[in-house]
Amino acid sequence: VGGPLDPRELGELGIIAALRRRAGRARAPWRVGIGDDAAVLRVPAGSELVLTSDVLAEDVHFRFRTTDPTSLGHKTLAVNLSDLGAMGARPLGFLLCLGIPASTSGERLGGFIDGLLAEARSSRCPLVGGDTVEAPAWVVSVTACGEVPRGQALLRRGARPGDRLVVSGALGGAALGLWLLERDLREISGAAPFIRRQLRPRPPHRLGRRLRERGLATAAIDLSDGLSRDLGHLLRESGVGAEVDLERVPLAAGLRALCRSLGFEPLPLALHGGEDYEILFTLPKRAPPIEPLSRLLGARLTEIGTVTAARGVRYRLRGAQARVTDAGFEHFAPRSRVKRPDSPAEK
Amino acid sequence: VGGPLDPRELGELGIIAALRRRAGRARAPWRVGIGDDAAVLRVPAGSELVLTSDVLAEDVHFRFRTTDPTSLGHKTLAVNLSDLGAMGARPLGFLLCLGIPASTSGERLGGFIDGLLAEARSSRCPLVGGDTVEAPAWVVSVTACGEVPRGQALLRRGARPGDRLVVSGALGGAALGLWLLERDLREISGAAPFIRRQLRPRPPHRLGRRLRERGLATAAIDLSDGLSRDLGHLLRESGVGAEVDLERVPLAAGLRALCRSLGFEPLPLALHGGEDYEILFTLPKRAPPIEPLSRLLGARLTEIGTVTAARGVRYRLRGAQARVTDAGFEHFAPRSRVKRPDSPAEK
Repeated sequence: VGGPLDPRELGELGIIAALRRRAGRARAPWRVGIGDDAAVLRVPAGSELVLTSDVLAEDVHFRFRTTDPTSLGHKTLAVNLSDLGAMGARPLGFLLCLGIPASTSGERLGGFIDGLLAEARSSRCPLVGGDTVEAPAWVVSVTACGEVPRGQALLRRGARPGDRLVVSGALGGAALGLWLLERDLREISGAAPFIRRQLRPRPPHRLGRRLRERGLATAAIDLSDGLSRDLGHLLRESGVGAEVDLERVPLAAGLRALCRSLGFEPLPLALHGGEDYEILFTLPKRAPPIEPLSRLLGARLTEIGTVTAARGVRYRLRGAQARVTDAGFEHFAPRSRVKRPDSPAEK
Repeated sequence: VGGPLDPRELGELGIIAALRRRAGRARAPWRVGIGDDAAVLRVPAGSELVLTSDVLAEDVHFRFRTTDPTSLGHKTLAVNLSDLGAMGARPLGFLLCLGIPASTSGERLGGFIDGLLAEARSSRCPLVGGDTVEAPAWVVSVTACGEVPRGQALLRRGARPGDRLVVSGALGGAALGLWLLERDLREISGAAPFIRRQLRPRPPHRLGRRLRERGLATAAIDLSDGLSRDLGHLLRESGVGAEVDLERVPLAAGLRALCRSLGFEPLPLALHGGEDYEILFTLPKRAPPIEPLSRLLGARLTEIGTVTAARGVRYRLRGAQARVTDAGFEHFAPRSRVKRPDSPAEK
C-alpha cells in the first residue's frame, strides 16, 4: 500500500476510499472508523479522553520548496502526538481534515498520506475519520485523541513556588533547521541533523506517560512555540513565575558551532525558536535529583530554573539579570511573521 | 460577551484568550477545556464516544459575498451536529481549527465567533479547544464529539433488503438558496426561506436520538452531499440496493413554484442539491406505519422507497423506470465544481 493519489483522477470519494484502504480496518477500542458519519470509540474503562487539534498551513507553517510531502505527513501527526505526550496520554487515533488545491499532484498527496500513515503505524495511532476538500492552498488539521487514567492528565496549571523547572532533550535545533531551509543552505556541512529535526520531529511520547505514571510532574507543556513563550503559558495557567538560568538551557548538539560559523548567537534559537517538541515540566523540590531521574525515565533532562511566587520570568546569565525579549512565534503579530534567529533577543 | 475580534490587534494569543473568555469555563463532563495542550473529557459511564470532522473552505463551501460571518459560524457547527445527530449521538463539545488571513476584519472574525458560540449554547455543545492560524483564505474545521449508549450508534451499514427507506423534512431548499445567492437573487419574492435554509441549516438533532432510543432504524446517514449521493453511501456500506419512487421525494415548501417561475425542474435540486442536513434512514418492514411514527418522533417523515438485495439504485417516475445521473457535490471532480440545478438530472 502507498503511492500516488491524484485528486482530479480519484475525486473526493476516491481519495476517501484510498485512505480507508490504506488505513485498514478499525480495531478495538474503535468500533467504527472511516466510512460512516462519525467514528465511534469505546473508551477504555477508567480512562479519561484527551483531545487536541493543530493546523498546519502552506506558506505559514511549511513550504513545499523546503519540505517533502512525506515529511509533512509525518510532522502533521507528530505535532499532535506531542500535545498528547505532554498530557501524559496514550494515543488512540486521529481525524484528518485536509484542504488541498485541485491541481495537487498524485505524488504530493500520495507522499503526504504515506508519511502520515507511517507515523500513525509507528505510534499506534490509527486514522479513523476526517474530511477532504478543495482549498486554494494546503491546510491540514489533525484532531488527535488519547487516553489517561482518570484524573491523572498532566496539566499546565499545577506548578507551585519552589518547584524545579525541567526541560527534556536539547533545544534550538528545529529553528536552526528552518533557518537553513529558508536560505537554501541544507547542503552545508553540519546542516543535516537540524534539517531532520525541523522536518521530522520526534516528540518524546513515552516521557510524558512515564512522568504521569510516576506522578512526578506538577505541570507540563510541550515546546511548540518556543521555550520563552511556552514557559509563559505554563506559568500563567499556574498563577506563578520563574527564574531561569540561561547558561543551563540545553542547546542542540552542534548548534553553538554552526550558529557561530553563520555569525549569530545560538541562545535565541533555543529560547524562542519553537518546534522543538520537547516537554517542559515542573517537579516538586523533593523529587529525585535530575541525574537519577533522567536514567529512571530514559530521557535527557535538564533543570533550568525554579518556580517563584512572583509572577513573570527572570532570566539570569553569568550570575546577572538578563533581559530576554519574548519573540516566540505568534500568528497575526507582524513582528513574528518571520522567525529571525539573528534578531536581538537578549542583552 | 461578543463583538469584534481584530486578529492583527489581538494576535494569536489574544484571540485564544477571547475565545476562552467567551466560551466560558469547562463544565462536566469536561475536566479541562481551552487553555492546555489538550482538552480532557470524563466520558459518561456506559457511553461510547462519537467523533466527526468537517471542513468549510472559502470560495469552495462559502463566499463572504453571499454569507454573513454570523451565519457562517452557525453553519460551521451545525453541519457537524448533523453528523452527530445522524449517529443518534448527544453532543458533548467541539474543537475549532481556524485558518484566516491576517487582514480579516474584527467584525468578520467577531461575527463568526458570535454565530458559532450562539449555536454552541443552543445545542449545549461547548467549545473546548482548537487552534488558530494565519492562512491565505478562510478554512474552518470543527471536530465535534458526542456520546451514544454502548453499541447503539446508528450506522450506515445496517440496512437489509425489504427495509423501508425514509427521509426526514423536505429537500432541495438549501440548494435553491445557494443558487439564488450565487446569482444575487436573494431579494426576489419567495426567496427568503431558501436563503435561510442555505445559510442557517437546522439539522433535526433530536430525531436521530429518538430513532436511536427507540431502536427503530437499521441504518442512517445525514444528507449533506445530496440524496442520490448519500443514499449511495448508505447502500454501499450496507451491501444492498434500493428502489426510489421519485414522486414521493418530499420537496421543500414553495420549491416547485419558485423553480418553475425561474424556468427549471425542482426534482434535481431535491435529489442532488445537498446541504439539506436531514436524515435518511431505513426501517424494518414491521416498524409502525409512517404517519403514527412521524407523530411519535415529532418530525415530518416520508417513505420514499424500499431496500433491495440487488445493488444500485432504481428510480421510478409515474410507474416507469427513470434514469438519474448521480450529480451530488464532490470535490475535485471537474463537473461538480459548480452546483447546477438546471443541469439534466433525469430523463
